[in-house]
Amino acid sequence: MNEQTPSHTSAQNKAAIIRAIESQSADDCIAWFDASPMADIVHDVAALSTHQRTKLLALLPTESAAEIVEQLPFSQTTDVLEELEPSAAAQILEVLPSDECADIISELDEAAASAILDKLDAAVADDLRRLVAYDEESAGGLMLTEYLAFVETQTVADVIADLTTNAEKYAKYNIQYTYVVDKEAKLMGVVPLRRLLLAGRNTLLREVMIANPVSVVDQMELQPLASVFREHPYMGLPVTTLDGVLRGVVERSAVEHALTEEADDLYRQSQGIVGGEELRSMPLMLRSRRRLAWLSANIVLNMIAASVIAMHQDTLSAVIALAVFLPMISDMSGCSGNQAVAVSMRELTLGVTRPQDLLRVLMKESSVGLINGVVLGVLIGCVASIWQGSPMLGVVVGGALMINTVVAVCIGGSIPLVLKRFKLDPALASGPILTTVTDMCGFLLALTFASMLLTQVPPSA
Amino acid sequence: MNEQTPSHTSAQNKAAIIRAIESQSADDCIAWFDASPMADIVHDVAALSTHQRTKLLALLPTESAAEIVEQLPFSQTTDVLEELEPSAAAQILEVLPSDECADIISELDEAAASAILDKLDAAVADDLRRLVAYDEESAGGLMLTEYLAFVETQTVADVIADLTTNAEKYAKYNIQYTYVVDKEAKLMGVVPLRRLLLAGRNTLLREVMIANPVSVVDQMELQPLASVFREHPYMGLPVTTLDGVLRGVVERSAVEHALTEEADDLYRQSQGIVGGEELRSMPLMLRSRRRLAWLSANIVLNMIAASVIAMHQDTLSAVIALAVFLPMISDMSGCSGNQAVAVSMRELTLGVTRPQDLLRVLMKESSVGLINGVVLGVLIGCVASIWQGSPMLGVVVGGALMINTVVAVCIGGSIPLVLKRFKLDPALASGPILTTVTDMCGFLLALTFASMLLTQVPPSA
Repeated sequence: MNEQTPSHTSAQNKAAIIRAIESQSADDCIAWFDASPMADIVHDVAALSTHQRTKLLALLPTESAAEIVEQLPFSQTTDVLEELEPSAAAQILEVLPSDECADIISELDEAAASAILDKLDAAVADDLRRLVAYDEESAGGLMLTEYLAFVETQTVADVIADLTTNAEKYAKYNIQYTYVVDKEAKLMGVVPLRRLLLAGRNTLLREVMIANPVSVVDQMELQPLASVFREHPYMGLPVTTLDGVLRGVVERSAVEHALTEEADDLYRQSQGIVGGEELRSMPLMLRSRRRLAWLSANIVLNMIAASVIAMHQDTLSAVIALAVFLPMISDMSGCSGNQAVAVSMRELTLGVTRPQDLLRVLMKESSVGLINGVVLGVLIGCVASIWQGSPMLGVVVGGALMINTVVAVCIGGSIPLVLKRFKLDPALASGPILTTVTDMCGFLLALTFASMLLTQVPPSA
Repeated sequence: MNEQTPSHTSAQNKAAIIRAIESQSADDCIAWFDASPMADIVHDVAALSTHQRTKLLALLPTESAAEIVEQLPFSQTTDVLEELEPSAAAQILEVLPSDECADIISELDEAAASAILDKLDAAVADDLRRLVAYDEESAGGLMLTEYLAFVETQTVADVIADLTTNAEKYAKYNIQYTYVVDKEAKLMGVVPLRRLLLAGRNTLLREVMIANPVSVVDQMELQPLASVFREHPYMGLPVTTLDGVLRGVVERSAVEHALTEEADDLYRQSQGIVGGEELRSMPLMLRSRRRLAWLSANIVLNMIAASVIAMHQDTLSAVIALAVFLPMISDMSGCSGNQAVAVSMRELTLGVTRPQDLLRVLMKESSVGLINGVVLGVLIGCVASIWQGSPMLGVVVGGALMINTVVAVCIGGSIPLVLKRFKLDPALASGPILTTVTDMCGFLLALTFASMLLTQVPPSA
């Protein structure tokens, strides 16, 4: 892997580029850019300060700057474009595909965004303003406005003439289809490039097109959009307004990419990095505050669970050996519950489970929970009774874990379905809710069993 | 969303298809297939038994069966193809793209795989055997063998003639480029379809091709492959052997798709569904055993942490109020550590952090850890001293959480880098290692502080 380049080279490279930036030497910056692999460039540029990063992009040719901007973490991209001269930022944006431009513009502060839009070609700026209005994960937010459209009464020769005339402009388009519209720009059909190749030059597009092509409405959300791509093998689909006016093209790869990001977000959100956008290059206080937001909420949940122990301090004091096992019971049940959460999330994604399948999930989970609860309960019960020399302690600890495992897998399996039914994000809340409930329930079971079975025998320490 | 169809319709549909299968009525199966949206079909077919699913696919036309096979969870696909008549399975595979065929064949048991390969066209079977030999996540494993290649001395007219002759065969190809090879099948260049359109029919491909195109070697792994696609805007790249012989085409969408799956796997693995393939339609004992595998390992880790409490039972018995806060300290530190893990994983993926940046990560994490540790420590310290009426208890609990937070974020931030350096999967081990270490360390800190500061004052309960 080229990520394994020795660190001294990397450190030398970084020192070199900082020197070049500080001395404002465009030549040195360009030489460094040309000589370094893109992965090294991203790594080193990401580690610069925002100020250095901005200076570097201003020194590099637009094409090179745009390449870097495309690869940087998104939050660094927006910071740097806000700092750059609006005209320089506009030049960089002009090189990027329209969907990426729109994503960036919509994250800039308003003043910077409008200053940059003013410097762009009016038609491009209008397109961008329209794109920015879409939800980022809708068909409109993911679509490109770089596409070819011709009126149905034009001929194959017209298309070839246009391709020849605009060869340079189209070089950055990813052309696979030519779209055919009527006079009101409503989508009529699609012509795969291959058909153009095989058709006579005087053929009308109307004759060679595939009529009533599959298309999506600009407001369509990511998951339904992904389903459409799963059902149809096309690399790209035309995006229209509700009235059928062609607005852009959404590519399969853009949808796949958005799904990857969603899966990554899901993982991070499950770890409590809410927003999921932290980079270590961000200001310390910002990073600290973001993380604390979730941790403070977590304190409250923890205290709710801990209050169960507090209410049973007398029991615990009488059977101090139980204190060894309380964290174990809560952790083990939490793990069992998380496994059930993960299976439900997967089945929801695959479409093999739906919110209304709750009963089936509960039945399936309770049987696994029962088996695993018995196995783990007996295991930990034996450990407890041998370790602490008290068979009764084993019964208490094992019994509590056994029941709590069943509770945890049933709750874990259900939460994602319930959240989804109420249109909430199943990822975010599954973890903390589950942990709090299984902790409380586990402590309660263990301490109640202990007060029933254990405190009588040795009458307090 | 069309996932929200009322459940009674869904239940009726499912009853209808089961009736159709049991009565072996192909017409009813076809009518059901034609009338149902694909999402419902997947949901209902996934809930059938393997036996029913196999019967259904045998009753449907090959094209419909193939559509279902493509959408089913992978483990159900392989089960069903093993059960089907080899000739029926071969017919379904013939409709699927070569990369999907290869994925399926490589998961079938050996007898079924070779029986099916025998029923396939010899050339197709040879291609598949070669594909199966590749690692599933390498360029070779992700590539398609459906592509167009011509010798450099052929002309544009030759290509058009071939496209016309084989129109039907190519209908399922996704053609954007024509590849140009020499007589030994070594890749020489690539011709975008657009260039063919603009070039004269007698032009030699050698003259119109882009020479020395970007290509990847068949052994290239997923992450480097993703980097190549990040650096270049192409929708597909030619895949060659080390000798430069053209073997296939890997598409951007295949790479994006593999990355999505990897991100999903990462999430599931972090939840301890090792293998990540569980579906609730699988046999109960299999599901139970898979989950237990990880839970049993977890018991051992939990016991290591619990043994710290066991060694300090006397202290705990003297300061029983501490028992309320032990699970809280371990849980809160675990969360802080997981946040750091998530940030490191993200930065590794983005390429802005590398294993050799360990020192920088430690410095950045320790400062966040210190701030958050102080905030959380003071918070929980106040809670403890007011709740239990003991300021000293507040100092012990708050101090332990403070230090343990710093430890947890430093370990959490480093583990993924260290695992990656040793070429281990950063996802799998981060969670359990982190939890065990932070639990142990948290218990140890709290109980040691307590034995120093608290046990003297009230001389045992």
